[in-house]
Amino acid sequence: MLTFFNAFKRVLVGRPFRNDSLAHTLLPKRIALPVFASDALSSVAYAPDEILLTLALAGAAAVTMAPWVGIAVMVVLLTVVASYRQNVHAYPSGGGDYEIANVNLGKTAGLTVASALLVDYVLTVAVSMSSAANYLATAVPGMHGTQALVATIGVVLLALVNLRGIKEAGSVFAVPTYIFIFCIFAMTVTGLIEAVSGNLARAPSAAFEILPEAGFENGLVGLAGGFLLLRAFSSGAAALTGVEAISNGVPNFQKPKSKNAATTLLLLGAIAAAMIAGILYLARATGVQMAQDPASEFLLNGQPLPDGYVQNPTISQIAGTVFGTGSIPFFIVVAATGVILVFASNTAFNGFPVLASILAQDGYLPRQLRTRGDRLAFSNGVIALAAGALVLIIAFDADVTKLIQLYIVGVFISFTASQLGMVRHWTRLLRMVKDKASRARMVKSRVINGVGFLMTLTVLIIVLITKFEQGAWIALLAMLFLFMMMLSIRMHYDRVAKELAVDEDSSPRALPSRVHAVLLVSHVRKPVLRALAYARASRPSRLDAITVDLDPMETEQTVQDWEKLAIPVPLTVLASPYRETITPIMDYITTMRRDSPRDLIVVYIPEYVVGKWWEQLVHNQTALRIKTRLHFESGVMVASVPWQLKSSEDAQKFQDLP
Amino acid sequence: MLTFFNAFKRVLVGRPFRNDSLAHTLLPKRIALPVFASDALSSVAYAPDEILLTLALAGAAAVTMAPWVGIAVMVVLLTVVASYRQNVHAYPSGGGDYEIANVNLGKTAGLTVASALLVDYVLTVAVSMSSAANYLATAVPGMHGTQALVATIGVVLLALVNLRGIKEAGSVFAVPTYIFIFCIFAMTVTGLIEAVSGNLARAPSAAFEILPEAGFENGLVGLAGGFLLLRAFSSGAAALTGVEAISNGVPNFQKPKSKNAATTLLLLGAIAAAMIAGILYLARATGVQMAQDPASEFLLNGQPLPDGYVQNPTISQIAGTVFGTGSIPFFIVVAATGVILVFASNTAFNGFPVLASILAQDGYLPRQLRTRGDRLAFSNGVIALAAGALVLIIAFDADVTKLIQLYIVGVFISFTASQLGMVRHWTRLLRMVKDKASRARMVKSRVINGVGFLMTLTVLIIVLITKFEQGAWIALLAMLFLFMMMLSIRMHYDRVAKELAVDEDSSPRALPSRVHAVLLVSHVRKPVLRALAYARASRPSRLDAITVDLDPMETEQTVQDWEKLAIPVPLTVLASPYRETITPIMDYITTMRRDSPRDLIVVYIPEYVVGKWWEQLVHNQTALRIKTRLHFESGVMVASVPWQLKSSEDAQKFQDLP
Repeated sequence: MLTFFNAFKRVLVGRPFRNDSLAHTLLPKRIALPVFASDALSSVAYAPDEILLTLALAGAAAVTMAPWVGIAVMVVLLTVVASYRQNVHAYPSGGGDYEIANVNLGKTAGLTVASALLVDYVLTVAVSMSSAANYLATAVPGMHGTQALVATIGVVLLALVNLRGIKEAGSVFAVPTYIFIFCIFAMTVTGLIEAVSGNLARAPSAAFEILPEAGFENGLVGLAGGFLLLRAFSSGAAALTGVEAISNGVPNFQKPKSKNAATTLLLLGAIAAAMIAGILYLARATGVQMAQDPASEFLLNGQPLPDGYVQNPTISQIAGTVFGTGSIPFFIVVAATGVILVFASNTAFNGFPVLASILAQDGYLPRQLRTRGDRLAFSNGVIALAAGALVLIIAFDADVTKLIQLYIVGVFISFTASQLGMVRHWTRLLRMVKDKASRARMVKSRVINGVGFLMTLTVLIIVLITKFEQGAWIALLAMLFLFMMMLSIRMHYDRVAKELAVDEDSSPRALPSRVHAVLLVSHVRKPVLRALAYARASRPSRLDAITVDLDPMETEQTVQDWEKLAIPVPLTVLASPYRETITPIMDYITTMRRDSPRDLIVVYIPEYVVGKWWEQLVHNQTALRIKTRLHFESGVMVASVPWQLKSSEDAQKFQDLP
Repeated sequence: MLTFFNAFKRVLVGRPFRNDSLAHTLLPKRIALPVFASDALSSVAYAPDEILLTLALAGAAAVTMAPWVGIAVMVVLLTVVASYRQNVHAYPSGGGDYEIANVNLGKTAGLTVASALLVDYVLTVAVSMSSAANYLATAVPGMHGTQALVATIGVVLLALVNLRGIKEAGSVFAVPTYIFIFCIFAMTVTGLIEAVSGNLARAPSAAFEILPEAGFENGLVGLAGGFLLLRAFSSGAAALTGVEAISNGVPNFQKPKSKNAATTLLLLGAIAAAMIAGILYLARATGVQMAQDPASEFLLNGQPLPDGYVQNPTISQIAGTVFGTGSIPFFIVVAATGVILVFASNTAFNGFPVLASILAQDGYLPRQLRTRGDRLAFSNGVIALAAGALVLIIAFDADVTKLIQLYIVGVFISFTASQLGMVRHWTRLLRMVKDKASRARMVKSRVINGVGFLMTLTVLIIVLITKFEQGAWIALLAMLFLFMMMLSIRMHYDRVAKELAVDEDSSPRALPSRVHAVLLVSHVRKPVLRALAYARASRPSRLDAITVDLDPMETEQTVQDWEKLAIPVPLTVLASPYRETITPIMDYITTMRRDSPRDLIVVYIPEYVVGKWWEQLVHNQTALRIKTRLHFESGVMVASVPWQLKSSEDAQKFQDLP
């Protein structure tokens, strides 16, 4: 089974890379920016859409509020960037929000942040891939309606690529990210020039009349109006995800690491804010209108839209209006957006296993995940992430608007906890530091983090209130589940560590008084002879061979064959009233234990090593069950004596590959 | 995992029975008949229907041929019964057709018969349960259309009952079988009396006009007519399945076994033939008409049948006509028929595992299935049978008419092979026996088996020709698959036996020159101390402890803890460039093997024995992978030193149950 799987994996996934071959190339700022920015920048591909279509619920007048919502998002974005610049200086180790919360706020806060981040990584993949599928559908008209399938295939491919391991340097990321940035700015500038010169066309959706939802006939008024505005803001705040990526990546920067990271962070914030502003301005100028459900919310000349109307994302509507739908620049913009979204998913595939390995190191996840270098650890993380994202994509049919309701709760839990942690951090440092200049800097940092904390807390509350019913409860439930699971694992490890700690009773000098070896015999064949030789070579105080009488004729044959060997080891035949193997053996061992409880019993079991998975089914099943059962007996050790069948040689070749 | 599953199984399936508590109560004829007859008798519940609806394809005139087809079936039935009376005398051991074919015609024929029988057991369950679901739908009108669901549930329940084990004696089978026989005869006699007195009503379906299929406008004429007649006969031949059951059960009869079995077989044949005759007579007398697709084949007053017309099986239509639909006798007849069909399914659940264990004994199936007493063997058989039947029921939507096309190919392959085997058997005996009276008896038996062979061969050919395209190819394909699989397993076992046979080179006296023990250490905890104690107690020539450096701080701690123990065993730290565990250990062992190839290396691995399935996921994963990998090295033995965590105690309680 293993070997078959290994061979298959080798074909699909390739040879594993040597850990130290992935040398830590330190990144200059111009490469670090695109490497860490794709997640944050890509959100302009869907965040403006969500602002527009949420406001559209209250009619056309409400949509004119979009730039103001955009400004609010930008303010939060720049505040968070300013706060994280402090984090980068204080925690250059790359531990990220989990480390900050863990150190400053305690384990519960740390675990909360970890759960939130894990869930958000899954959502990053689901949202980005679904959005990328939308852009593909924009460029290739026949693809509309297949987004869920495309996103599913995309996640599977990305998981396979990551299982294979990505060797290439940051430069692969750099080119498409810069192309994307260039595209959006070129589009904005072109649009601006057209607008100034009076040549800017209207988007096709500008002609639609919006039917407001019941209760919003008078636009954004009253409590409901305010609530809707906040909901639009919450969705727009998706633009902030990925800002924390740089703070996890400080160790990868060229020196001075913290300073370079802080500068890159500032650059990232400025670019992201400018892009949001540009897109929301152009959406306003070209009259782009978006609806959650175009069929019921839009009218064209007083009639519902024709069947088969396809609502394209904002960026592609703008690109179509500015450059002309079907023009080459249009396709470049759409393609660059799709690519950056796939890159954004990929950052989650890097971040998730790293966080999982840190959590495993702290005993919150199974120990075998702890070393990132171990392919198994990394692979399990990639598979878990992909599986989670696939469930979401399929459950929500790759609908970005629905998925976004689950999103960013986790990010803002993490932001808020980390900013509070930073405030505590500075307060603690201030108690110890006397130097005036240092103190002034720390106080300033504490103020910035304090403002960041209040800001992110406010956004978190807004997000919770406006999105809880819309789907955020699902994300919270998933976080709670992860939290409980990781806590249970940690408590289990703690309990085991206590149970197993070496104490005074456990003297390493107390040896069992005698060793009593028992050899299990079914037929007298080469594997049994090898096991017999090994058992005798260990020179036990006493050596018995036993066989279970399942079939009188076979047993008779076994006894005769044994006697022919003429060796001074007696063969005991155990009766089996149930005609089964395990109980007589267990009874024999138990009696032996009772007679001489201070002896060590070593049970020698000949085992066949096979080459094909189905051979495993026709061999060793009984041996496996006996071993499992014997493990529950204390004072009993199981010695497996393998016999390599010829068919195992091929399998070994695969095992021998590193 | 195991323990959780065990606990669950215990609740669902109950405690296993002790083998010798299922004492071989020898059955008198009056109990043996119902025990072995349910399969054969139950086929009157669907065989007449299939004759009628196949003939209906050629119009109303063709249906009048039904009694003649019935007579042909009865002739074959009585011939087969006569032949099997010879089998019973010649092979009283209960090996059945597989044994007869194996001994007289060789292994290929034996394996062919075995494959055919295994497939037919699966079909017996599928057909009988689907038919039982039809009868339930007849009695409870709202159930119509749910047959597939009901049959599925029925198979699952029956499988569970069988997994629990059936302890009760044959008397449980006796009562319902006799009730069923009584019901059918009472119905026939009542119908006869009504017919003679002129009071016999017409069945509701008698009023329908049959629209013949294209090509049959003139009734049963020409080649197509003959072919259809043969097809009707093939379907009716389903009445013969189960006749061989008695020949498998001879050892269960009271003495004189063979004579009693032969008498019971004759009785069974007579009853089955009489029932078919009775039902086909009454169907004719009451004018019952059946169609494969009533909506397209029937007209009522020149109009198609109203929507929602439900076609009831022949027995229930007759019972409704003779006793009145909804009368108490009507319900008794329908219920008795349903029960006997469930019993027929159950005979397959008894026969399949027995045949599987005989095949395992002969090396055609995995060895662990060989002892019937072992619950595992029996359970696997029950599960395989149920799974196969469920696939068929779901794939064919519990449609008896479609399933019957796959059926009886296997039975007639088995009949034909066994009759040919018997002819050979007598021919061989005749060469040795000189006594005149004995020779006369043998010649007579050979003639009977010879006639049986020709008859069953003819039917087999008819069945193959008329049913191949209709679905029999599926059954043949399944048989071919089983045949190839069992042959591969046998060839594998033969190859392994040859590879492992003790020869001159394998002297039991050649011992490894020295024993080199290696202890794997991760943390210095109690399990490691126990493993160390066991390793030292075995007094190896040399003992090394090794640990893999995954994390410098942890490794430092381990080394310090080890030194604190102050024992004369050196701890070697292995570097791990990949930060993974297995390769450094394998490299160490390989080097050791190369340096002293004649030594035995014993690797001591401390293992945690846990109580809950999820604990298994957070422990031992690395140990398991190391063990798997080490098994491919010759000259290396793995010694697992179990440490029982406290949580394992509960799990052990379940393991301790027999």
